[in-house]
Amino acid sequence: MDVTAKIAQFVAGTDYETIPPKALENAKTAVLDCLGVALAGSQEECAKICAQIARQENSKEESTLYGQGFKSSALQAAFANGTAAHAMDFDHSFTLMGQPTAPIIPALFSLGESLGSSGRQILEAYVAGFETTAKLVFALRDWPHDGWHAPGTLGSFGAATACAKLLRLDPYQVQMALGITASMASGVVCNFGTMSKPIHVGLGARNGVLAAKLAQAGYTANAAGIEAANGFCETFYRMAPSDAPIRELGESYALVSDGIRIKPYPCGGLTHQAIDAVLEFRAKHGLTAERVESIDVDVMQHTYNRIAFRVPETGIQGKFCMGYLLARAIIDGKISLDMFTDSAVRDANVLKLAEKIHMRLDQSLQAINEGSRPCRVTVRLKDGQTYSREVQHAKGGPEVPMTTEELKAKFTECARQALDESSIDRVLETIERLETLEDIRPLCKLLQA
Amino acid sequence: MDVTAKIAQFVAGTDYETIPPKALENAKTAVLDCLGVALAGSQEECAKICAQIARQENSKEESTLYGQGFKSSALQAAFANGTAAHAMDFDHSFTLMGQPTAPIIPALFSLGESLGSSGRQILEAYVAGFETTAKLVFALRDWPHDGWHAPGTLGSFGAATACAKLLRLDPYQVQMALGITASMASGVVCNFGTMSKPIHVGLGARNGVLAAKLAQAGYTANAAGIEAANGFCETFYRMAPSDAPIRELGESYALVSDGIRIKPYPCGGLTHQAIDAVLEFRAKHGLTAERVESIDVDVMQHTYNRIAFRVPETGIQGKFCMGYLLARAIIDGKISLDMFTDSAVRDANVLKLAEKIHMRLDQSLQAINEGSRPCRVTVRLKDGQTYSREVQHAKGGPEVPMTTEELKAKFTECARQALDESSIDRVLETIERLETLEDIRPLCKLLQA
Repeated sequence: MDVTAKIAQFVAGTDYETIPPKALENAKTAVLDCLGVALAGSQEECAKICAQIARQENSKEESTLYGQGFKSSALQAAFANGTAAHAMDFDHSFTLMGQPTAPIIPALFSLGESLGSSGRQILEAYVAGFETTAKLVFALRDWPHDGWHAPGTLGSFGAATACAKLLRLDPYQVQMALGITASMASGVVCNFGTMSKPIHVGLGARNGVLAAKLAQAGYTANAAGIEAANGFCETFYRMAPSDAPIRELGESYALVSDGIRIKPYPCGGLTHQAIDAVLEFRAKHGLTAERVESIDVDVMQHTYNRIAFRVPETGIQGKFCMGYLLARAIIDGKISLDMFTDSAVRDANVLKLAEKIHMRLDQSLQAINEGSRPCRVTVRLKDGQTYSREVQHAKGGPEVPMTTEELKAKFTECARQALDESSIDRVLETIERLETLEDIRPLCKLLQA
Repeated sequence: MDVTAKIAQFVAGTDYETIPPKALENAKTAVLDCLGVALAGSQEECAKICAQIARQENSKEESTLYGQGFKSSALQAAFANGTAAHAMDFDHSFTLMGQPTAPIIPALFSLGESLGSSGRQILEAYVAGFETTAKLVFALRDWPHDGWHAPGTLGSFGAATACAKLLRLDPYQVQMALGITASMASGVVCNFGTMSKPIHVGLGARNGVLAAKLAQAGYTANAAGIEAANGFCETFYRMAPSDAPIRELGESYALVSDGIRIKPYPCGGLTHQAIDAVLEFRAKHGLTAERVESIDVDVMQHTYNRIAFRVPETGIQGKFCMGYLLARAIIDGKISLDMFTDSAVRDANVLKLAEKIHMRLDQSLQAINEGSRPCRVTVRLKDGQTYSREVQHAKGGPEVPMTTEELKAKFTECARQALDESSIDRVLETIERLETLEDIRPLCKLLQA
C-alpha cells in the first residue's frame, strides 16, 4: 500500500470545515494542556539549556520561546519549546506508545507565529498531524521492541505533517516532507531519566518545521519514505506498517475514537490509577495518615517494572515511587509540582507513611482494553476497617475525563511557574476562543513572560 | 565493555603531539579533498536549498557557508556545508560502510571558525573524530542489514567527538555528547538518489556541533549511550558492538592502518576500477573509440546491483552507468564534473561506443581484502587484438594512492565550480601548511566566494 502517498493526500485534503466537532474540541484541550506543561517545563534545566543555544544563535526574532523572555527563529523556538513540553513528563499521552503528540503543538505554534496563522489554521493543522501520528501508531502497534521513543520517531512525522498543512503544501510536497522526516527521526529509550529524554520532543518539533520548510523549497526524498525497502518502517521497526489504520485516515478520527489522556498529576502515568483511588478514599471516608495501618497496591508487570523506586532520593525519583506518591496524596489531598524537589521527597512525615505502603506484582490483573492499566488499592486502617478498589482507567482519559475546571486548574498551576497571574488569565481566556483568533501572535506574546 | 566511556577517554586524551605522522598526513589529505568536493557541491540544488534555510534564519555571522557568499551560525554552516560535501557523491570513502567521515570536516571547520581554532587543533580534532567513526565501523562490521546510511548514523558520532575535542570537553562531557548523539543519529538508505541522501551528511555535521555544545552547557544523557540496553547499537543495529576495535583506540590508528579512499572520478565508486583499466589501455596502447569491437566488464554481485543503469537518461544516472563512463574515459581520456549534465549524457558519439560495452556478473571474482572490489575489463579491437586486466583496488586508496599533483588537480577542478582561480591557489597553498595556521578564519574567508 502507498502509505506515504495516502498520508499526504489526507494531510493536503484536511479542511477545518469537515473535521468532526469532537476532534476539534479535543484538539483545543490538547493545545491548552501542552502549552501549560510547556510553560512549567520552560523553567527546567534542560529547557533552559536549549533556550541558551537558541539565544547564542541570535536568529531572527519571529517565534516566542515560552517563559524565556525572548524570541528566535521558528526552528529554534520549536526545539526549545518542544523540549520544555516534555521536560516534566506532564504532557498528555495517547492510547499507545507514550506521548507521541507533544512535538506537534510546539512545532505548530512556532511556525504559525512566524507566519501569523489563525487559530483555525492551527487547529486544522494539529488534527492533520495528530491523526497522522495516531494512525502510524496503530499501523506499528505490533512492534515488539522497546528501543525507540515514539515522540522522537513517530512524533517527527506528526510535527512534519502539521507544519506541512500550515504551509499549505500540496500532496507531492507533503510526501517529500514525510520522506525527509524518515531521515531525521531518532530518539532512544536508554536516555530516559536524563535531559536527553525531553530533547526527543524538541528534536521532533524542530524536525517537523525543517522538513516542511525543505519540502516547500523543493527538497526531494523518496516518495514512499515510510513503507519503502530500507525506508522508515523497515529500518526503524523491521516491519511493514499495517494498511488498515492508514486506509482509515479521514474516515475515522483517532481524536474522536481514542482521544487523548491528560495527566492530572505531574508524575509517572502508571501511578495515576492508585492516586485516584486513595484520593477517593480520602474524600469519601476521611482517610488520614494517622488512621493507616497498611496499604497494598497490586499492579501489573508493566507498572511493577517502571515504578521502580522504593524510597526516593531525588525529586525525579519521587515521580516514579508509589509509596511516596500515595503518602503525599493522603497527607496533602493532591499531587502538585512542588512535591518533586529533592528536599520535598525527604519529608520525614511523608516517608513514615510511605513505609506502610507496599506495591505488589499481581499477574491476575487483566486490562479490559488498550487504554487500561489496572491496579488494586487495599487500605487497612488501625481500627480494622478495610477499603479496596480496583481501577482500570486513570482520570484524564476518555473513560474518566477531567472536568473543564480541573483542566484549567492544571494549566494555572503549570503556567504559574513562568507567568504572572494576569497573563495566565488572559492566556486561558484566549485559548478558550482559539478558533476565533485571526492571528495567534498576540497569544504567543503572552507566553513569552 | 564500557564503549562510550572508552571512546570518551580516547577523545579527551588525544593530543596532536602523540598522533602518528602518517595519520596527520592523511588527515590533511582528507581536509583538502573534503573542502574541494564541498566547494563543488555547494553549487548543487540541495546545498543551495540548505543555504537558503540558513539565510532565512539570519543567525549570527560566525561561520562561512562555502561558495554561498555569506556566513551564518556554526550550526547552520555545518548543516549547509555538510550537505554540500556529499552533494556530488565525490567525497572520500573508507574501507567499509561508504563515506562516514564527510560529516566531521564541515562540522569542525564551522565550529572552529566560530572559535578561531588553529590548524593543529582542527587536525587533532579530526583525528579524534575519524578514529571514533572508524572503530565504530569495525565494531559493527558484522551488521547484515542495509537500512542505515552510515554518514548519518556513525558519522554523527565522528562529528560529535571531533567537535567535543575542539571544545576541549572533559571525558564525562564527551560521554554526554555521545549519549546525546545516540538520540539524534538518523538517515535511511531509501533516500538514495534524492536530495535527502546528502542531507544525511549535513544533519550528521549539525548533530555533532549541537551535541558538543549541549554537553558543554551541562546537558545530560546516558553515560553508556552507545552500548546500553535500548541504546544506539541495540536500537539501530540490533547487535552489541565488538569490544576489540574499541579497545584499540589510541593503540592503533585507522588513518594509518586503513587510510581513506579518495575518489578520482565524480561517479559511483564501484565503477572506478574499470575506469582505471581503460585509461591504462588508452595510455599504453592508444585505445580509441574507432578501434573498439566490444568491451566486457565482469563484476561482483555488489557492483552488478548498484551500477544499475544501462542507458543514462539523466546526469545523475550517468554516474552509475558503466557503459557511459567507460565510453567517456576512452573518448575524453578522463572523467570530469562536466560529463554529468543531462545533455552531456545524451552525446550520440559517446552512446554509440557505450552500446559496445557490456557489464556481466561474474561470481568467481574474489576480493582479496576488505578494501577490494575486483573487476575484469576485456577489450576486443576490430583488428583482432585483445587487452584484459583484472583490477582489485581502485586508484585513490592506500594500495594505489593518488599523487599530490592528482589530488591538487581534483581540488582545483572542484573548487572552480565556486571560486576564482586566484582564490583556489591561495586555498591550496594555505591547506598545504594547515598545521602552521594560528587561526583558520582567513582560510574560511577564502572559501566563502
